[in-house]
Amino acid sequence: MKKLVLTGAAGRLGSYLREPLSKMCDTLVSTDIADDIGTLYPGETYVKGDLASLDDMMKVCEGADMIVHFGAFVDEGPFEQLLGPNFIGAYNVWEAAHRHGARRVVYASSIHAVGMYPKNEFIGTDVPHRPDTFYGLAKCFAEDLGRMYWEKRGLESVHMRILSCAQVNNARALGSWLSYDDLIQLVTRCIETPVTGFSVIYGVSNNDRAPVDNASASFLGYRPQDNAEDFAAEVLAQTDPLDPQDSGHMCHGGPFAAVDLGQSGLANMTIVDDRKTT
Amino acid sequence: MKKLVLTGAAGRLGSYLREPLSKMCDTLVSTDIADDIGTLYPGETYVKGDLASLDDMMKVCEGADMIVHFGAFVDEGPFEQLLGPNFIGAYNVWEAAHRHGARRVVYASSIHAVGMYPKNEFIGTDVPHRPDTFYGLAKCFAEDLGRMYWEKRGLESVHMRILSCAQVNNARALGSWLSYDDLIQLVTRCIETPVTGFSVIYGVSNNDRAPVDNASASFLGYRPQDNAEDFAAEVLAQTDPLDPQDSGHMCHGGPFAAVDLGQSGLANMTIVDDRKTT
Amino acid sequence: MKKLVLTGAAGRLGSYLREPLSKMCDTLVSTDIADDIGTLYPGETYVKGDLASLDDMMKVCEGADMIVHFGAFVDEGPFEQLLGPNFIGAYNVWEAAHRHGARRVVYASSIHAVGMYPKNEFIGTDVPHRPDTFYGLAKCFAEDLGRMYWEKRGLESVHMRILSCAQVNNARALGSWLSYDDLIQLVTRCIETPVTGFSVIYGVSNNDRAPVDNASASFLGYRPQDNAEDFAAEVLAQTDPLDPQDSGHMCHGGPFAAVDLGQSGLANMTIVDDRKTT
Amino acid sequence: MKKLVLTGAAGRLGSYLREPLSKMCDTLVSTDIADDIGTLYPGETYVKGDLASLDDMMKVCEGADMIVHFGAFVDEGPFEQLLGPNFIGAYNVWEAAHRHGARRVVYASSIHAVGMYPKNEFIGTDVPHRPDTFYGLAKCFAEDLGRMYWEKRGLESVHMRILSCAQVNNARALGSWLSYDDLIQLVTRCIETPVTGFSVIYGVSNNDRAPVDNASASFLGYRPQDNAEDFAAEVLAQTDPLDPQDSGHMCHGGPFAAVDLGQSGLANMTIVDDRKTT
Amino acid sequence: MKKLVLTGAAGRLGSYLREPLSKMCDTLVSTDIADDIGTLYPGETYVKGDLASLDDMMKVCEGADMIVHFGAFVDEGPFEQLLGPNFIGAYNVWEAAHRHGARRVVYASSIHAVGMYPKNEFIGTDVPHRPDTFYGLAKCFAEDLGRMYWEKRGLESVHMRILSCAQVNNARALGSWLSYDDLIQLVTRCIETPVTGFSVIYGVSNNDRAPVDNASASFLGYRPQDNAEDFAAEVLAQTDPLDPQDSGHMCHGGPFAAVDLGQSGLANMTIVDDRKTT
Amino acid sequence: MKKLVLTGAAGRLGSYLREPLSKMCDTLVSTDIADDIGTLYPGETYVKGDLASLDDMMKVCEGADMIVHFGAFVDEGPFEQLLGPNFIGAYNVWEAAHRHGARRVVYASSIHAVGMYPKNEFIGTDVPHRPDTFYGLAKCFAEDLGRMYWEKRGLESVHMRILSCAQVNNARALGSWLSYDDLIQLVTRCIETPVTGFSVIYGVSNNDRAPVDNASASFLGYRPQDNAEDFAAEVLAQTDPLDPQDSGHMCHGGPFAAVDLGQSGLANMTIVDDRKTT
Repeated sequence: MKKLVLTGAAGRLGSYLREPLSKMCDTLVSTDIADDIGTLYPGETYVKGDLASLDDMMKVCEGADMIVHFGAFVDEGPFEQLLGPNFIGAYNVWEAAHRHGARRVVYASSIHAVGMYPKNEFIGTDVPHRPDTFYGLAKCFAEDLGRMYWEKRGLESVHMRILSCAQVNNARALGSWLSYDDLIQLVTRCIETPVTGFSVIYGVSNNDRAPVDNASASFLGYRPQDNAEDFAAEVLAQTDPLDPQDSGHMCHGGPFAAVDLGQSGLANMTIVDDRKTT
Repeated sequence: MKKLVLTGAAGRLGSYLREPLSKMCDTLVSTDIADDIGTLYPGETYVKGDLASLDDMMKVCEGADMIVHFGAFVDEGPFEQLLGPNFIGAYNVWEAAHRHGARRVVYASSIHAVGMYPKNEFIGTDVPHRPDTFYGLAKCFAEDLGRMYWEKRGLESVHMRILSCAQVNNARALGSWLSYDDLIQLVTRCIETPVTGFSVIYGVSNNDRAPVDNASASFLGYRPQDNAEDFAAEVLAQTDPLDPQDSGHMCHGGPFAAVDLGQSGLANMTIVDDRKTT
Repeated sequence: MKKLVLTGAAGRLGSYLREPLSKMCDTLVSTDIADDIGTLYPGETYVKGDLASLDDMMKVCEGADMIVHFGAFVDEGPFEQLLGPNFIGAYNVWEAAHRHGARRVVYASSIHAVGMYPKNEFIGTDVPHRPDTFYGLAKCFAEDLGRMYWEKRGLESVHMRILSCAQVNNARALGSWLSYDDLIQLVTRCIETPVTGFSVIYGVSNNDRAPVDNASASFLGYRPQDNAEDFAAEVLAQTDPLDPQDSGHMCHGGPFAAVDLGQSGLANMTIVDDRKTT
Repeated sequence: MKKLVLTGAAGRLGSYLREPLSKMCDTLVSTDIADDIGTLYPGETYVKGDLASLDDMMKVCEGADMIVHFGAFVDEGPFEQLLGPNFIGAYNVWEAAHRHGARRVVYASSIHAVGMYPKNEFIGTDVPHRPDTFYGLAKCFAEDLGRMYWEKRGLESVHMRILSCAQVNNARALGSWLSYDDLIQLVTRCIETPVTGFSVIYGVSNNDRAPVDNASASFLGYRPQDNAEDFAAEVLAQTDPLDPQDSGHMCHGGPFAAVDLGQSGLANMTIVDDRKTT
Repeated sequence: MKKLVLTGAAGRLGSYLREPLSKMCDTLVSTDIADDIGTLYPGETYVKGDLASLDDMMKVCEGADMIVHFGAFVDEGPFEQLLGPNFIGAYNVWEAAHRHGARRVVYASSIHAVGMYPKNEFIGTDVPHRPDTFYGLAKCFAEDLGRMYWEKRGLESVHMRILSCAQVNNARALGSWLSYDDLIQLVTRCIETPVTGFSVIYGVSNNDRAPVDNASASFLGYRPQDNAEDFAAEVLAQTDPLDPQDSGHMCHGGPFAAVDLGQSGLANMTIVDDRKTT
Repeated sequence: MKKLVLTGAAGRLGSYLREPLSKMCDTLVSTDIADDIGTLYPGETYVKGDLASLDDMMKVCEGADMIVHFGAFVDEGPFEQLLGPNFIGAYNVWEAAHRHGARRVVYASSIHAVGMYPKNEFIGTDVPHRPDTFYGLAKCFAEDLGRMYWEKRGLESVHMRILSCAQVNNARALGSWLSYDDLIQLVTRCIETPVTGFSVIYGVSNNDRAPVDNASASFLGYRPQDNAEDFAAEVLAQTDPLDPQDSGHMCHGGPFAAVDLGQSGLANMTIVDDRKTT
């Protein structure tokens, strides 16, 4: 692997991926809209760029083997706010990857693409979309886009539907947690698997209560090691009875399934950053 | 039914729908980006508007019971060209409908949302999306959007995946034809059915060779009357042997399945307008 | 066919079946809890009997080839009220049929065994039960019982899930109507088909808007002739907009899906008897 | 959790659950038809009651958060014998739970609700019922009842289809065994999971030869620890060749699948109590 | 269409197809193992050939556009007897077609490839094989062979699973009948459809009691016109009660499902030739 | 177990099975077309025989309880070459087993029976056949044959679709590897399971990247212990980028999916024998 591109490199998950990705290739091109992202890892370069600009994406993707696409507005918000980074941004990344002859896009999709399914329905990777927010709708858009680029242009993509990658501090997270270590394994497998075509896989740890079905993505070899059950006793002790009629508790999307469309601020409420300091 | 809105009223199909729709309601508000659409039918008013403008859509949707949404750039084209009318336009229509408390959107979706399925696979209305073009991708977007507005906001929508509504002048059309009369029946059923929730239905006539499965939309009561088999002898006699390895022949999307992404002009090549003069 | 038994012979549907059934066999034994059922047809005898009494059922089923089981409390009601006629009664009929070596039970099951499915889900005959009332729960019980008697004892049964067999006077009936003539065809096919094993079939006419899937019962040869669409214009003109959030409109069970459990009187509200006078 | 109710507390499995359940709540109300159940655990009270009496069930369920319903006639027997405890008893428990506003019923269902499926068919939790006995039919009834109370009244329930919870002393048990420890984990998960809606889960240990599919109940987090393979060498050495045409060997229900309906005494033949003395 | 080949031209069905096929092409090459087949139709030539000889098949397939393959030993029989004409013969036909660059094989497959499915299971064209005889096993072989030649070599094939093409003189035929006229329509559609890839379709008339599902082959446009129900009253009047435990009555394969493997003579017993004299 | 028969005893896998099989029965009859197979294990006898000769198979199967059938031409090759050992040989084995009243055939089937499925489709044991070679077609034939002998004659069979049982020296093998130890466990389970009917199971180790679904064969208790991931780092380091449009990389069958039909020598290219010396 000569060159990898990482979008969203200044974001919470993106910044965590910089180091491991830098070790997988000769050159890691990290990009984000921030002015800088601090000290670079060996082999890493940083290019400031706007996802909403095809020119910018053309620049960062030049010569890339694969693009690891984590850049986005990472919260629910008005459609107008997500249009640039999340919708147009996805198009720009795939289009730039295609024009430069890249092999694959590894994409941070989300459970919110299918967040309206009830939690007691064990959903596979090929159920029809049921987005819970504009945020989730952008994930649906990128998944369909990725499938089309594969079927029409031979550009591979793997869509990692991350459930929740943050501290386990509520009952839903006992099932939905994706640990940072498992995130890294997942991204690694999506990169190193020799052929993937168009694939979808859930990003979730080996939780006892994991509510989604990764069987059909088995060939990718993702075998998570962490288990949120370690936190179960403590979390459940602090959990009041939950209303089963509330889609925020009964649906895969959790709070996003219950929120009014377009209402930002949700991500901040539900996610606590507990990365180990690097 | 007091007030209906018709978008794309100046288009080929839209202009054909104006008269029947005007008879189903007290007021038909027709809209398009054209300056005018000629003589109005009784009860019809015309409002020039740009789909890409939420303000325009807010104006035309005021007080509407339902919106019949046919407006779009009706061809494959570069993503940038479709972004305004087809993607943002769909959002604007649903959002305006929601803000005004409309009950339902009846939407001209397309086979191109699932055009990459091979033709010898009999596809139902709930198969995962497989768009064949940016044009089809916009239809996927609107379908997912419509489902979300139903599940989160209670706004109903029926998504009519039209196969091909034009003269039967090629072998594919023997299966894919939707006659104008059947189009009108279809739109009528989608409007008059008392409750629909979120539904998808294929827009195709009662052709012997119809390649798609409308069973799951049976409750809508669409029972097409026309049959492209009337043209079969003539069309087949003029058809040279077709290459089964060509996705343009082997996939549901027909020529769109084979075309390069973003290449406009396709619609003109394959569609011949044979409306009866009104 | 030497001997048929008809339970519920004094009921609305049962009384309508007496004449055609009497013509299909040497002896028709009609039974109900009423003292008499008026003038008998040639070959018909009447035996008063209580479904809740195994002794009574043993008497009426003696020597029978098949039992056409329409007897029941035909309304939602408290569980205690349905226990005797609908639950225990079903057991008694199957048990008596088995002890006497009868070949088959033809049973008036109901859409209410699966009434909680949303109407825009096209349900087949093998979906898991989702009863909407105690009335529907009794139908589930009899279907499971019938399957068990077939698999353990070789007693055949056909379970006709009748949607609504009454005047078409509301929007739901445009899809759910079963005409009396089609009811007779249906019962006839269930009797005359040489082998049936355990089968389930929906009892619905050839309505444009029929919302259920009889494909898997195709071998029974039931091909309904009537179509509620004849009443559509009139019925829809009288139908106010319906609330899609109301399970009474959005679910297959109609009003039963919305009613409080155990609340009787519903059948009278929704069914108008429009039999032709015999 | 303030108050739990345990029915069938004097039974083999019920008596084993008393201690762990007493530790999960402030008050455990144990009930059975026996006069007493011996020494009570801290927090436990005993109330004699007949499942077939709604009054009795109303008394024991007063103020309960959840009811763990294990009470039943635990064997195949004539329908008349099971009618009171198993059918009416289930109704009484759900109805009492509903009237008192309880949140959930955790129910000891059984593989015998689907016992007629052949063993080489890997059955999930949503296959249609195929009861093998009246005993199994009562489980089908309670499952359908539980689904209805959830969909109509919002009362949650989890239906644990126990395969065989007893000593591993025959070939079938190598697949069907549920250890006591795993039973306790299963019941614990069904209680502590914050929201369950209506769910079905198989009660089986982590046996190499487990023949049923719990994937769709994954969100409950039941992860059994014991494995009947520990007994495989010994059991297989003592097993004569079995007739594959015998439904007692070829069906999931085992001996119940082969027994004549209504023939009691079967449970005693096949189950050896090997609880550790408490 | 320049050249068609018809194998089995001296057989019952083959001889019936000669005339209509001769009208669809410039040259019809009829072949069979008989010395001659009587008067030839305009454009028809006859070549004696043995299916079991690749050389013979190479000769008859030279220059062919399509091969209509009806040749076979048309009865159950010992494997050794069917090996040459039915197994090796199928290979020879496909191999010769491939070597000569033919476009498609239209094959007389049979319900007996899936004859062991119970009749109350409505089987589609993609269910796994369940052959009922060596005769059926040869059909399975040819279907798998045909799929492989399509996927590996681009040779199209349509596999017509004929149910029963003979006089309607028994209860099973009320569902399974394929009239001669519908046979001709079916073969015609399989030839004239521009692209087919690998497809399977059931050969059955538009019988009320047709027990199989052709939905997935809908794009071929086969719409049968005849209905065995015309014979129902007469046939059912002569039908004694049938044993539902007999796989000859309960399975799709009919008598073949019940016969001992390898026992020839069955076809003669069940089929009465009622072709109109030509 | 008194007597086992092992065909293909001189082959690579067969010779590895001789010792463990000899310990599972009183007498192991090993057979192959070779003159001898070296030193025999205690209880083992060797009988030279030709699979293509029913007489030979009748001799070796006399008195056998089960036949472990590994004999075949183990490579792709011209149909004519595989006809005797692979097609006729399978028939001879099943027929001889039946005539002698054996209980079960345990068969070395292959992934190549379904090798044309794309690798990112997680295939279960009941998907329709999609053979990739004549070699795979022979496996399809034997599977259908085995199903028929079970359904018509009560002869059980388990069909082990082996993926690749050889050294892990390429990227595909990271998913497809079956270790020798796991092969032995698999064969053992197929023999010792008391009843199997007709079953299919994939022969693959517990690889992280295993691409097939054995869930439906769960009752057989096969729980592989080895994991090709141990070789992943080394193998991937040596793997150049692979073309995702190449069916040899994208399909389950691997190189067989890409090879020309009938081209032998493939097995030698892709398989390295790494058996421990015995």
